[in-house]
Amino acid sequence: MQIGHWLERVRAERPLVHNITNLVVTNIAANTLLALGASPVMAHAHEEVADMASIARAIALNLGTLDPYVVTSMDLASEAANRRGVPIVLDPVGAGATPYRTGAAMRLLDTRRVQVLRGNQGEIGVLTGAGGEVAGVDAKGAGAGLVDAMRRFARDRGLIVAATGEEDLVTDGEVVYELANGHPWEASITGSGCSLTAVIGAFVGVSDGTKGGLLEATVAAITCFNVAAEMAAEGAGGPGSFQVRLLDALHTLTARDVDARARIRRG
Amino acid sequence: MQIGHWLERVRAERPLVHNITNLVVTNIAANTLLALGASPVMAHAHEEVADMASIARAIALNLGTLDPYVVTSMDLASEAANRRGVPIVLDPVGAGATPYRTGAAMRLLDTRRVQVLRGNQGEIGVLTGAGGEVAGVDAKGAGAGLVDAMRRFARDRGLIVAATGEEDLVTDGEVVYELANGHPWEASITGSGCSLTAVIGAFVGVSDGTKGGLLEATVAAITCFNVAAEMAAEGAGGPGSFQVRLLDALHTLTARDVDARARIRRG
Amino acid sequence: MQIGHWLERVRAERPLVHNITNLVVTNIAANTLLALGASPVMAHAHEEVADMASIARAIALNLGTLDPYVVTSMDLASEAANRRGVPIVLDPVGAGATPYRTGAAMRLLDTRRVQVLRGNQGEIGVLTGAGGEVAGVDAKGAGAGLVDAMRRFARDRGLIVAATGEEDLVTDGEVVYELANGHPWEASITGSGCSLTAVIGAFVGVSDGTKGGLLEATVAAITCFNVAAEMAAEGAGGPGSFQVRLLDALHTLTARDVDARARIRRG
Repeated sequence: MQIGHWLERVRAERPLVHNITNLVVTNIAANTLLALGASPVMAHAHEEVADMASIARAIALNLGTLDPYVVTSMDLASEAANRRGVPIVLDPVGAGATPYRTGAAMRLLDTRRVQVLRGNQGEIGVLTGAGGEVAGVDAKGAGAGLVDAMRRFARDRGLIVAATGEEDLVTDGEVVYELANGHPWEASITGSGCSLTAVIGAFVGVSDGTKGGLLEATVAAITCFNVAAEMAAEGAGGPGSFQVRLLDALHTLTARDVDARARIRRG
Repeated sequence: MQIGHWLERVRAERPLVHNITNLVVTNIAANTLLALGASPVMAHAHEEVADMASIARAIALNLGTLDPYVVTSMDLASEAANRRGVPIVLDPVGAGATPYRTGAAMRLLDTRRVQVLRGNQGEIGVLTGAGGEVAGVDAKGAGAGLVDAMRRFARDRGLIVAATGEEDLVTDGEVVYELANGHPWEASITGSGCSLTAVIGAFVGVSDGTKGGLLEATVAAITCFNVAAEMAAEGAGGPGSFQVRLLDALHTLTARDVDARARIRRG
Repeated sequence: MQIGHWLERVRAERPLVHNITNLVVTNIAANTLLALGASPVMAHAHEEVADMASIARAIALNLGTLDPYVVTSMDLASEAANRRGVPIVLDPVGAGATPYRTGAAMRLLDTRRVQVLRGNQGEIGVLTGAGGEVAGVDAKGAGAGLVDAMRRFARDRGLIVAATGEEDLVTDGEVVYELANGHPWEASITGSGCSLTAVIGAFVGVSDGTKGGLLEATVAAITCFNVAAEMAAEGAGGPGSFQVRLLDALHTLTARDVDARARIRRG
């Protein structure tokens, strides 16, 4: 599967991605999109979220530090996005850690058409009913039936489900891809998952919006990000310099780099 | 025009700059001010913004992720600043992108004495009536009559207007300066414009508050920041390392560096 | 005093630290905890803060950009923490700068059992009644009777008080430790004090909760952080690269490094 051309499409079209994200990662998510060649905007005021979502190519919703105000922001933005056909990527950070977070994630999934759900294996396990334990925002490993649960959830709800971890799993309910790129240091910096969610937004923003397009865009986004992480880790002295080099690598990454290093297995 | 001595004045006086800024750049704006040698404080609670603005040497207001709570914070802080003669720098991030943002910027300009308005060319074009297109928070180029519109707006309202871009334009309504320093990578990191706004706060904070003083302080702030960016770009491998080196360069920058590299043209 | 073994305990137990912190440092505080080997979570919604505090090993409360919503968040989280025996570390950023901040800090100290109070010498001087001046969030030096005031405050209220500065002072009301590690560049980056507060959270989270345990954990946390800062400063070109190297150093720091470099004097 050649997916490097997706990176070129993102850079050529420079899609505007509207992020309603958490307080920890607003900066790094914006910088990640800029480094990649996409265009980030952050906005959460009820007075403008629908306007902003309407001019975006994708919206990325992240539950990392949600509160009632932001929950309403996401509600308004996602309603506008659904109405205008703007794809939604949902990152249910900490689903399973408190009832409030799990409830907020499920309510969005129940009331809106979400195109891509991306979380770590613990969060996805909780939401798809596969089980798994979530302490804070760190996954403690998914239950055994994760792939089956993901596939069922994706098919029943008509969305793409991605569970990232040492290996990343992506499914549209039929096909399952196992992605093996990445570096352990991604878990030693905050916001790598959240930044990846924003990156998925950029890629689905340049897709045709079909199920096949969304699936391939998600696989391409995760693989590009993880190949950049591998390149960034070479020569880094720890998580601080890794993070800096990751932004550099996202900027200099080429389609050729991605296709040469991609480790995508159709399960 | 020798402006390096402004940098020395900032370092000697270490002005306290009270920022009410957006969620994306709070950290980098604070670090920029610290690296330069100024003293940042962030505060937005209605209970204390007036107190904080009153002890500051300048306040920097940034509309990047505004919401009704923060709009009121800015209202209270700017009222106190006007009463105490503390200069206000306004950064109308995303003006033109949504009616809410444009409205919030214009209301501040209409109800308060703002000393410096700084935005990218798209935002300034929208606010001064020159036209221009804003998608998200990225300018798509200003209309042709930008300089004339800026000059008129500055003269009518008695403030300094600065529009940054590949070349930066600064006017007090009479004189127009064209500033040619800077590096394209400033557009590849988030918050470079917002950090610059905070830096202008530090410089106008050590000015005498006259129109001539505010104009020269604004020119000096932009030039210092952009010279540091040029020095940071030398040897950087991408936007991640550029951002790190920019903080280092702001810290080690000398008045001599600035005067040797300054490219300031009186239009 | 050998305290390197505390670092190993933190890494082995990977304590979950629930932070309710300010908008400037959310990212760097999370990255600091991850680099060290602890597990951060940020949450402030009234609907979930008590749940999150209850599953944490420590909570870290930081008043840097407080507002009424967050004040209530801290109230709810600290109530749950007290009920469950989860230690609380309080960082009264800017106490003394405005009545609102001083009041919020004192109210938490009066209504909850706080285990560790850590601020700069100006903030601690204000709260303990020793005097001192606070402009914005920078201390301008503590009054002369700081050590006496700290000791009295700690004894009367049964908590650990830490005042950081060029030398750091830590007391449980009886013993006073003077800690001489650290580097001046810690004052040139934002959030180093706030990150240290989060780190103290990780260390007290693996303590036995006795007064002696809390005291030693606090001394160990400050010393580990400051030794990492010394190592980070070697070869850094300014505050930007210092911050990056600090995360790297926290990640690679060993108990042996800490014990070899620790400069702890019992006063």
